[in-house]
Amino acid sequence: MVRILYTLCGADPDIRFSPHCWKIILALRHKGLDFEEKPVGFTEIAKLENGFSKTVPILKDGDKLIADSFAIALYLEQTYPDAPSLFKGEGGAGMARFVEAYSQSTLHPAITRIALKHIHDMLSPVDQAYFRESREARLGSTLEEVATGREAEIAAFADKLKPLRVMLKSQPFIGGSEPLFADYIVFGALQWAFKTGNPDILDANDPVMNWFERCQGFTETS
Amino acid sequence: MVRILYTLCGADPDIRFSPHCWKIILALRHKGLDFEEKPVGFTEIAKLENGFSKTVPILKDGDKLIADSFAIALYLEQTYPDAPSLFKGEGGAGMARFVEAYSQSTLHPAITRIALKHIHDMLSPVDQAYFRESREARLGSTLEEVATGREAEIAAFADKLKPLRVMLKSQPFIGGSEPLFADYIVFGALQWAFKTGNPDILDANDPVMNWFERCQGFTETS
Repeated sequence: MVRILYTLCGADPDIRFSPHCWKIILALRHKGLDFEEKPVGFTEIAKLENGFSKTVPILKDGDKLIADSFAIALYLEQTYPDAPSLFKGEGGAGMARFVEAYSQSTLHPAITRIALKHIHDMLSPVDQAYFRESREARLGSTLEEVATGREAEIAAFADKLKPLRVMLKSQPFIGGSEPLFADYIVFGALQWAFKTGNPDILDANDPVMNWFERCQGFTETS
Repeated sequence: MVRILYTLCGADPDIRFSPHCWKIILALRHKGLDFEEKPVGFTEIAKLENGFSKTVPILKDGDKLIADSFAIALYLEQTYPDAPSLFKGEGGAGMARFVEAYSQSTLHPAITRIALKHIHDMLSPVDQAYFRESREARLGSTLEEVATGREAEIAAFADKLKPLRVMLKSQPFIGGSEPLFADYIVFGALQWAFKTGNPDILDANDPVMNWFERCQGFTETS
């Protein structure tokens, strides 16, 4: 059986930047599950699997189709209970929702404003047109107007990770002694920033960067 | 056996305001464990149990003494495994540390600046002298200087609870379907603000207020 993960890419299919897709790439590696990644552009998503979902990631696992990163993580946990856990219990699944809400309400709006113009420039022409129209309508500003606030957003960014930085004084991962899906939620947000032309949003010596590298290392060897 | 929880109070022993003590009051109720609360003033803490700890809560459980709210919660979970869980698994214990870090790095500094002068005014004279000296040294400002920023801090406060507010769209508690210790961590921070003369820091219709009341109701009936 070929397990397929549809993810998002720029004009260059090697540039995959969606935070939600990265969460699932790490979750699949964590579970030790093989998969074939199929990156697509924004405007191709609606054509996938007979229009199954408006967003990626979409996981095709045998005859099952699942969209939404959190739903996919719950599916993997339930379907592969003998593989390393993504939540380590019901409490971990509940609290991962809090981490998701933190990431999406605090980090995502900032990264959107930091990376928006660069994301646009990485896309294929047809995706650029879609992206400009949808994002400018959502934000009520042109991409170029949003970009003028980029430096200020970068200067304020490290502070938004204070909860993680403080926690890292107690333990190496959000999941405790080993990373869990909650770690990959925040990892995905940072990976999104790094893959879209913002290598320097955090200081190389920031404990958050060390944690980021530990997450990567853990899933590459698991 | 009498189980004793030492907590913090103002000049009036009925005014108990420590966030860390409230976490443990709710944790003990959650576990269905009887206890006698012994509130003391700041300057009495060092005299408790032969100087066992510089901070409260301190739990005396039979011949065991435990300080630090998170350590007490872990102790209760381990010692009373058949009572309702405070973490629901190893992942829940790990992620509760993240919630603690969020609360202490985001909510606590704001509530300190909102409530500081009022806390001082609620204390007995000997505690007032200790509190003024230690807090002014820590903050590098007089209590009165800090109080001038109170209204601005209150105006900015609701936004700091956005992660919780967003999460509440998915589920009723940080723990998922029922509250866990992670809920009581954030509950304790808000209770601290409410008990120190700040009833209006959140709108009565804020979903966070509904969650706060659900936490209270759950532990009162459990």
